[in-house]
Amino acid sequence: MGFKTIIYRDNKLKIIDQRQLPGRLILKHCNNIKDIYNSIKTLTVRGAPAIGVFAAYGVCVGLRTTKTPDREKFFKALSKIISYLKKSRPTAVNLFWALDRMEGVAYKNKDKPTKEIKGILLKEAKQINREDEIMCKRIGINGAKLIRSGDNILTHCNAGALATSGEGTALSVIYAAKKRGKRVRVYADETRPLLQGARLSAWELKQKGIDVTLICDNVAATLMKQGKIDKIIVGADRIAANGDAANKIGTYGVAVLAKEHKVPFYIAAPSSTFDFSLKNGRDIPIEERDPDEVKSFGGLDTAPKNIKVYNPAFDVTPSNFISAIITEKGILTKPYSKSLKSLK
Amino acid sequence: MGFKTIIYRDNKLKIIDQRQLPGRLILKHCNNIKDIYNSIKTLTVRGAPAIGVFAAYGVCVGLRTTKTPDREKFFKALSKIISYLKKSRPTAVNLFWALDRMEGVAYKNKDKPTKEIKGILLKEAKQINREDEIMCKRIGINGAKLIRSGDNILTHCNAGALATSGEGTALSVIYAAKKRGKRVRVYADETRPLLQGARLSAWELKQKGIDVTLICDNVAATLMKQGKIDKIIVGADRIAANGDAANKIGTYGVAVLAKEHKVPFYIAAPSSTFDFSLKNGRDIPIEERDPDEVKSFGGLDTAPKNIKVYNPAFDVTPSNFISAIITEKGILTKPYSKSLKSLK
Repeated sequence: MGFKTIIYRDNKLKIIDQRQLPGRLILKHCNNIKDIYNSIKTLTVRGAPAIGVFAAYGVCVGLRTTKTPDREKFFKALSKIISYLKKSRPTAVNLFWALDRMEGVAYKNKDKPTKEIKGILLKEAKQINREDEIMCKRIGINGAKLIRSGDNILTHCNAGALATSGEGTALSVIYAAKKRGKRVRVYADETRPLLQGARLSAWELKQKGIDVTLICDNVAATLMKQGKIDKIIVGADRIAANGDAANKIGTYGVAVLAKEHKVPFYIAAPSSTFDFSLKNGRDIPIEERDPDEVKSFGGLDTAPKNIKVYNPAFDVTPSNFISAIITEKGILTKPYSKSLKSLK
Repeated sequence: MGFKTIIYRDNKLKIIDQRQLPGRLILKHCNNIKDIYNSIKTLTVRGAPAIGVFAAYGVCVGLRTTKTPDREKFFKALSKIISYLKKSRPTAVNLFWALDRMEGVAYKNKDKPTKEIKGILLKEAKQINREDEIMCKRIGINGAKLIRSGDNILTHCNAGALATSGEGTALSVIYAAKKRGKRVRVYADETRPLLQGARLSAWELKQKGIDVTLICDNVAATLMKQGKIDKIIVGADRIAANGDAANKIGTYGVAVLAKEHKVPFYIAAPSSTFDFSLKNGRDIPIEERDPDEVKSFGGLDTAPKNIKVYNPAFDVTPSNFISAIITEKGILTKPYSKSLKSLK
């Protein structure tokens, strides 16, 4: 398979425009800070780890117009860029994690010439990118141990290569299991309203030669009742200190179904997804998006024009519903308040 | 509110073309047996009770070309019409119930002149229509007793006026509660893949002045966790002798969520929906529909072209998940194997 979600080469930042998939595989060039902000906001690039990597590069792109040798002006510009990008999306913590890390590196080198700091920042962004790729591999290797040959695996939304700069998180587990000769079949929830499962997961799983069946989100319960789902693996956008995990809207419902049908429910996420400043999931900010995402499709109305809509982009799955959390550092199990400490 | 889902007047059968809603309110004329069959098959008319009423009229429309006085030929034509219409959709038992009732009336009058039998059949279809209207009213009156002022009610798919020839089943309960001065707010699941909740329930609830909020099916779990759903009311397409109920795909998932969150889960359905020939829900035939319903919308691809899709139109909710079944004859409670006997 030959796609890369985020490409930084010859000082050019390009991303796959995920709004165009599966119809068209198009690269979007991001040349300025507005491109960066809008690409995150409009879900041109999405997936918690990918947003982190992209935002890190975004800081470098944003600083291109800052040519001043004056350190005060430079840091003012940096701070403006970072606070601007932090406003793009509220839930995925990897965005804040990456931006804070970039800011930290700049301040650590604050006495160097501004041109040098810019170089250091680009190096850091590339390092975040590399770490993300390694993280994906390790999550795959760790998670594959949980998979048996013959397993039918349900996934929700897209926590795949398109959501990271590597092989993905939840889907990396599937790719790694396949590489180890395990036979797996995947059911992909289409994931309303924006259909990341239908448009992205189904597309990339097929690209990677995985046996994939697309279902409406409404079908998951029936499949579980029929005994056709052996495991569930999803990603996460932010995980609180007690293991409560925010992920794409609908994830919590899948977790409740998993509990009822005694199907193991796994979260796969890198340590950058953990937010130890939050005791539990109640404090995770949940993004509400435009009602039009629900009310229309491709310019066609799917509901009465003036109807009220409640359109949260994420929900929170309490940690007691989560059988294990697969990270690049190992598989965490209950009680999470204890096991999560190994990540700190 | 001034719409009628099924209109038979001046020997003309017209239905609201529900595929066009909410964009356009258009009546489709059904002039021959193919129109009848296709209207059911393509969901131009849908909803278990509406399909029953429509099929009854459909027998009369189908017999228009049968002008023979020869009884043998007449009954052969009738039998052909009935077995043809029975193939239109497999799950909703009201279709079979109405067609069997029409056939039974014809045979009861088999010694009369064929022209007279045709008249009797039209009278019977009108009677089925009238009974359906009365049934809706009674379900509303019975169900309204369960509703408290201030209730937030979740519904799935469309079990409203558009699904019957009267006020609906599940939604009739809401309309009746409102008429009795009870303040109700409704959350309508959009109901993938065909969006009957978004296109039909949201539309008719708004027409009837009900406070309605549209949600993606994925949001129901979160609303229940937030304590924002007091009751769930849905319809049914076929109910087995033990109370297991087939309804639109996704209903079973909602029932599992209701159990987890201790929210009462009600089915509203007329006695014509009960199939006492089936011991339990396992034997209810579940229609599988075209993968394109999931893979594309309004001519636009929403998934890779060659992706496998599993697209069952219904699921079965085991009776232990059902708090009560609201019928025109009263409210049935557990154990259903006992309480259902009152309907026989």
